[in-house]
Amino acid sequence: MLTRELNELLTQTGPGTPMGELFRRYWLPALLAEELPEDDCAPVRVKLLSERLIAFRDSHGRYGLMDEFCAHRGASLWFGRNEHGGLRCAYHGWKYDVTGQCVEVPSEPDNGSFCGNVKLRAYPLVKVGDILWAFMGEPQHQPSLPEFEFVHVPSEQTYTSKRWQESNWLQALEGGIDSSHVSWLHAGALKSDPLFKGAKGNQYNMSDFKPFFEVVDAPGGLFVGARRNAEEGHYYWRITPWVMPAFTVVPPRGDHPVHGHFWVPIDDENCWVYTFDYHPVRALTPEERQAMMDGFGVHSENMPGTYRPVQNKENDYLMDRATQRSGENFSGVRGIAIQDASLQESMGPIVDRTKERLVPADSGIIKARQKLRRAVVALRDQGTPPPGIEPEHQRVRSAAVVLPKDEAFIESCRDAVSVRPGVRQSSI
Amino acid sequence: MLTRELNELLTQTGPGTPMGELFRRYWLPALLAEELPEDDCAPVRVKLLSERLIAFRDSHGRYGLMDEFCAHRGASLWFGRNEHGGLRCAYHGWKYDVTGQCVEVPSEPDNGSFCGNVKLRAYPLVKVGDILWAFMGEPQHQPSLPEFEFVHVPSEQTYTSKRWQESNWLQALEGGIDSSHVSWLHAGALKSDPLFKGAKGNQYNMSDFKPFFEVVDAPGGLFVGARRNAEEGHYYWRITPWVMPAFTVVPPRGDHPVHGHFWVPIDDENCWVYTFDYHPVRALTPEERQAMMDGFGVHSENMPGTYRPVQNKENDYLMDRATQRSGENFSGVRGIAIQDASLQESMGPIVDRTKERLVPADSGIIKARQKLRRAVVALRDQGTPPPGIEPEHQRVRSAAVVLPKDEAFIESCRDAVSVRPGVRQSSI
Amino acid sequence: MLTRELNELLTQTGPGTPMGELFRRYWLPALLAEELPEDDCAPVRVKLLSERLIAFRDSHGRYGLMDEFCAHRGASLWFGRNEHGGLRCAYHGWKYDVTGQCVEVPSEPDNGSFCGNVKLRAYPLVKVGDILWAFMGEPQHQPSLPEFEFVHVPSEQTYTSKRWQESNWLQALEGGIDSSHVSWLHAGALKSDPLFKGAKGNQYNMSDFKPFFEVVDAPGGLFVGARRNAEEGHYYWRITPWVMPAFTVVPPRGDHPVHGHFWVPIDDENCWVYTFDYHPVRALTPEERQAMMDGFGVHSENMPGTYRPVQNKENDYLMDRATQRSGENFSGVRGIAIQDASLQESMGPIVDRTKERLVPADSGIIKARQKLRRAVVALRDQGTPPPGIEPEHQRVRSAAVVLPKDEAFIESCRDAVSVRPGVRQSSI
Repeated sequence: MLTRELNELLTQTGPGTPMGELFRRYWLPALLAEELPEDDCAPVRVKLLSERLIAFRDSHGRYGLMDEFCAHRGASLWFGRNEHGGLRCAYHGWKYDVTGQCVEVPSEPDNGSFCGNVKLRAYPLVKVGDILWAFMGEPQHQPSLPEFEFVHVPSEQTYTSKRWQESNWLQALEGGIDSSHVSWLHAGALKSDPLFKGAKGNQYNMSDFKPFFEVVDAPGGLFVGARRNAEEGHYYWRITPWVMPAFTVVPPRGDHPVHGHFWVPIDDENCWVYTFDYHPVRALTPEERQAMMDGFGVHSENMPGTYRPVQNKENDYLMDRATQRSGENFSGVRGIAIQDASLQESMGPIVDRTKERLVPADSGIIKARQKLRRAVVALRDQGTPPPGIEPEHQRVRSAAVVLPKDEAFIESCRDAVSVRPGVRQSSI
Repeated sequence: MLTRELNELLTQTGPGTPMGELFRRYWLPALLAEELPEDDCAPVRVKLLSERLIAFRDSHGRYGLMDEFCAHRGASLWFGRNEHGGLRCAYHGWKYDVTGQCVEVPSEPDNGSFCGNVKLRAYPLVKVGDILWAFMGEPQHQPSLPEFEFVHVPSEQTYTSKRWQESNWLQALEGGIDSSHVSWLHAGALKSDPLFKGAKGNQYNMSDFKPFFEVVDAPGGLFVGARRNAEEGHYYWRITPWVMPAFTVVPPRGDHPVHGHFWVPIDDENCWVYTFDYHPVRALTPEERQAMMDGFGVHSENMPGTYRPVQNKENDYLMDRATQRSGENFSGVRGIAIQDASLQESMGPIVDRTKERLVPADSGIIKARQKLRRAVVALRDQGTPPPGIEPEHQRVRSAAVVLPKDEAFIESCRDAVSVRPGVRQSSI
Repeated sequence: MLTRELNELLTQTGPGTPMGELFRRYWLPALLAEELPEDDCAPVRVKLLSERLIAFRDSHGRYGLMDEFCAHRGASLWFGRNEHGGLRCAYHGWKYDVTGQCVEVPSEPDNGSFCGNVKLRAYPLVKVGDILWAFMGEPQHQPSLPEFEFVHVPSEQTYTSKRWQESNWLQALEGGIDSSHVSWLHAGALKSDPLFKGAKGNQYNMSDFKPFFEVVDAPGGLFVGARRNAEEGHYYWRITPWVMPAFTVVPPRGDHPVHGHFWVPIDDENCWVYTFDYHPVRALTPEERQAMMDGFGVHSENMPGTYRPVQNKENDYLMDRATQRSGENFSGVRGIAIQDASLQESMGPIVDRTKERLVPADSGIIKARQKLRRAVVALRDQGTPPPGIEPEHQRVRSAAVVLPKDEAFIESCRDAVSVRPGVRQSSI
């Protein structure tokens, strides 16, 4: 349970808010690279942290992310023409380069001297992996580029999708570090989903409904360990790393690709869910890649030309009571991603955390909120940079292992939860 | 004309409002019984008096009405699975019985002792007639079950439907006790509607456009008498009972079934209109029942699978100017119920009663507001239970009679306006 | 750049606002005459200056514009029946004439004496040209009828359309007096639009992208002169008259009909754009008239039965990136009117003028705002009637002429910018 004040502190990310300032210390996924597929392609509207921006790719392959609205009279640059190294407003032809610098005002006799003083607020936008990352903070705070493993393995080993979620970002994150709902909400998927089924670990998952949680602090966030009974004298451990502010990796299953998420605030009532699947040491098979594109695993099937899921709040996620009743699929909603979305969005855009009732199985959520709160306050009051910015904080993996009962999971798994190039994930 | 303060007092029914407290003293229609047709069927979202609730029917046929949102983290129980005597949240499997009591928290080692302290706000929900009635007040104030005649005659003698109306409940009620609009808005229907036409009383209705109103106080509400000229030395009286807070019966016509309404606030800008048709002493004919299902009489044709009328605000109720111009149907809108809805919704969600201009023909409306105001204030300030709760207050009938000019309608009709099992309605 | 206070002063036009009071001193276009095509036709909902009104035409051809809502209990008169010299409310039959006077209350025994005291707020509505004009101010301030030339030439010489724009009126006006965007936003149209192409003046327009602006005060508003280079020793002048508050005429092209606009506030976030095309001395050809109906020139193609453009904000104006990229049409949006709408609406319902950055090419906009502000303040503080009301203020024309470099455009064009019956527009 949170106070109303603390709930607002953690959920509001617009300009000037403390949590907004924290997010503005990180590189954040702003678009999929596929959204700006070639030089001089169409610009794309982007809303991030409640700011309305325009993204484009110029004639030289450079990416730009800046105010959506022309400095002249406020027309949207979405209508602009992307040409010859800049984006030109369709109204009076003012032209901007990827840094937001105005480079031409056609009506001005002395174009050069006038332009020099016109610059839109703009943010660096760089391609790392299949994602275009933005840094929306002060230039002097710009950190090294993201080091998450899924954006650094060869492209044939990784796949990323995204979907729009109609809830605050924190609700989505809390679902991601909450391992205890898997046995319920996703019960059917463990048996049937091509990207989940067949792993030995699933059996432990389905036979012990009372996981014990142990949450360990990490330099960049947390390791959430969920312990279930395994063979005599052993535990099955599923370890979910969370890197601040919004990155998690789901513990792996057998030799399936490893998946995870990045939750990025659009505004206080919506977020983007970036979803990746990668294998550290081998290419994804064509069947795996096709399954991801079809919305299996933790991906979603989106409406053509958009990133809005076909199953969404407006159509009650096409929930099917007959399937739910049959027991084949506990939730009646098709697909793991949409099962999550349906429940998280059902809580309302920003859930009222003054009314919740947390239990020991929510200890990952509880610890994450505490860590977020401490980081927000330290940044606001002392200017302390938050955890998760350093490259080494980001080189983490999830793991699913069986350990003797007397071993501490974090001690036994130091290697397993670290990125080791060329070494397979620790997974059962 | 009301002051702004009084308009708010009578129209606001959310938790903590004086009128909301008054409504919480009565059994209120919450669903049609057909919405929960069998044990363990799908739960149904219900919004009443601005509270978001979930209704379900358990494996033993018991009905439950409770908070829509799980006590754990606020997910909607609409996504839950209704199974084995309770409704189980789809997120983490918390399970509730029909009293709102949590009976299982799967992740908790000591399930029993934890659950005992978790209980959702819940209200009794009981089937009387074709309606599921809820009591949303304090348990110590729970009255006897509803005694309205239409829910107690054998099922072959009664039919109930419902529709969503996009206006405050009071606007709808005021339409129901306003007999003077019938000669205008519903003029065409008296001649053509299969559930209205042919009664001798219609002739009086259509030949005297200046009804005189006499409103008499009743223990549970009012009797609104509308007097029109009949044969030499006689008046035609139509008597509409109103039982507080929101029940009325339309005066009968010949041997047609008798109809009436219950208006229930969804929130301050929407209400449910429950509409019944029953005959005190005979079964409804197949033709009558079919006509009701087709939206004739005071019923509506709803969009399949919903209770939203096919003709609605968004499509201007499919009003047809050619029909209006022809004089065949004064309003151009098809159907008595939708004629009412079109005008009442056109006033805006909550009409501004500081601007109205009432006339003697509105005396039913005026007296009803006065009675509501007195009851609301007496409950708020002295805790006085309002009229209309007692079973005998509810055993009223409407009547349509011809009386000699010198008789007081209420004296002559004491029997006619009382429920007399086995005795036909007083109707001409 | 405006202060927030000044932006609000100029954009808010509801009852009681200073700018609203200014608008209430003029005859304003309220409907196209085609919307009330015959006696006793269907009434039409009209929202103007944030007031919800109903317009109708009675059995004697008189036009009425009055409160949309019945004085009795607030039902919308849109549902009323227009009959026998008045509009009768569908609820209880109250009837009103075109002056808003109640002429019948059927339920009242003494109808006459009661009705005399019931009158809806109503405004004069008169047909001049193809437009029904309303005067929404105090009767003692009612000016002479509109004298704009396009409503006084014979009907075969003129054509008027209208469309709904999703922005504040001032944004639309500013687009109309801003000649510098033509070379960009409308570049393609000068070469291809049947109502634009072929004029010699277009060549000057397309070869000089740095027009110089000279804005001259006029009794009723402004003359905005845009100067471009022409042959040796000459300038090409395009002169746009603005008559307060919201009337402009686009400078002509060759012998094409002359077009212009009237922008009328619906509420603070929407306006009607009335668009006319007329020729001072000849009939429009069938081809020209068809082109206007098809949305060429400055007209729009509207959705059947409505005045909402087919290309609109919801569908991104069907903007086509391939066309934009090809250079054939700089904006990618089809049609001059919708090119304007797309940009003006993209600025948001009320653009934040505290953030804009004006340049010398915006001097028409700057001067118009100054004149509006002075007039609003003079009316509010001293009761001074604003410019543009007098008939002679309205008898202005646009012009497009080539002048020797040393001539002052306004001196040389006194005749050209005045209405001269029987004399062709000054146009090249």
